[in-house]
This record gives sequence, structure tokens and C-alpha cells, in this order.
Amino acid sequence: MTGARITIFVCVTCRVPIEGDENDFETPGGELAAAIEARLRDAGASSIEVRPVECLSVCKRPCTIAFAGQDKWTYVVGGLDAKSHAAEIVATAQRFAATEDGIIPWKERPLSFRKGVIARIPPETYRMTEKTE
Amino acid sequence: MTGARITIFVCVTCRVPIEGDENDFETPGGELAAAIEARLRDAGASSIEVRPVECLSVCKRPCTIAFAGQDKWTYVVGGLDAKSHAAEIVATAQRFAATEDGIIPWKERPLSFRKGVIARIPPETYRMTEKTE
Repeated sequence: MTGARITIFVCVTCRVPIEGDENDFETPGGELAAAIEARLRDAGASSIEVRPVECLSVCKRPCTIAFAGQDKWTYVVGGLDAKSHAAEIVATAQRFAATEDGIIPWKERPLSFRKGVIARIPPETYRMTEKTE
Repeated sequence: MTGARITIFVCVTCRVPIEGDENDFETPGGELAAAIEARLRDAGASSIEVRPVECLSVCKRPCTIAFAGQDKWTYVVGGLDAKSHAAEIVATAQRFAATEDGIIPWKERPLSFRKGVIARIPPETYRMTEKTE
């Protein structure tokens, strides 16, 4: 399943307060999406697509993204930024693509993924008798 | 689209602390799933399926559920219990089924849905140029 098609949804409406000005915000999701895309190109990971999204309704943990793929659990992950996390996001997406069901063993999860999971949603094919760790 | 097939995933591993005993928990997700199923049967809503899930990775906002359907946004909603919210959950699922894309207008959202959304994930068909409100 290494070559499975994966989508990384990136919220481009997440607002991050600008320090020193409580009424002003920046929206760094676009920069994060571009950073992930650049790294995917460098890695030749053409089966992983970055798709910008208007609001994943998380808002309190910018930036937020989601990993999704056919017959896999979808993972929503927050607290990410372009400078610190683009490389880990690409590594996570590649590991996610290689799983059968989207569940990456805990020990193989980058730190930003371990700390940042906000929710996960099972695939349509899921039934609870499956082993899900 | 009123008759669209909808899945309500219900986390049955969400733990709720038992008052007066900080080391003990109950797991009321199973009760919530049963309460929703009973109301769906009463409503004759056979196209809406309740599916128990081992952990939606929300944990801090028990109980947690997700509304999902073909070509629709998936919504993860927390802070729910069988006694207070089963009726609103069924109403939300029916309204969700009737939408084209899973987006229920704000004014038509029950209070538990307005307050409880933890995340939403776009369908595979989503592209950002779409109107998403």
C-alpha cells in the first residue's frame, strides 16, 4: 500500500494572533500548504496531494491539517507550522500511505503527530470487531 | 438527498469521571449509541446507521460522535450524553442527510451541535473554490 493515494487537507483559514496586537491575526495555513508541497516535490511523492480547505472547525489549535485516504482512518492534527513541522508532516503522510488502515504505530509517529491529534474518523469500511490498536 | 445513507459513529471508549472518585470512570458511549438507535427506529429512519467505534481520539469531550455520508463533510461532535442529546442527535442526522454536502445552515443546527463541533473534514470531492458557508 506504499503508493496509496493520500490527501493532506490544510486549513488556510486558521488564525494565529500576532504577538503584541490582540486584535490582529495572521493566517499561516497557506504558507504551511506551500511548504508541504515543496517537500513532497523534493521527495518525489506524487501520490500525496495537498488540498487547501476553508476551515476544519478546529480554530483553537492552528494550523490544522487532516490526513485522508481510501479505506483508512482520517486523522485531524493541530498545532502545526511551516517552519517547524513541514518535514514531519511529509514523513507522517508517507508512513500513513504505507499503512493498510491509516493507523501508524505509536512508536513510529513523529512528535507533532503524537501531540497534535484532535480527532480521528474511521473509514466507511470500519466495523468495531477490527483490531485498531 | 433526504434519503441519503448516513453513518453516526459513536465512540464507546470515551471515559467520564465518576463524581467523588477521581480514579473511577464510566463509559457511557454504549448507552448513547443505544439511545440514538431506539429513536431512529421510532422515527423509521432506516437509512441512518449507528456504528460504535473504539476511540475517536477526542477523549477530553465525552461522549464524542461523528456524522458521515457519501460526498458530505464529516462532522465530529463532543460533549454529548444519552439523556440530554439523543433527540437532537437524531434531528441533526436527519437534517445532515437532507443536505447535499453535509453543511447544515447555522440557524438550523441544534444547540448541542453548535456548541459541540470539534472538527470537520471535507469529502474527497471537495475543492476549495466551492461555497462552504
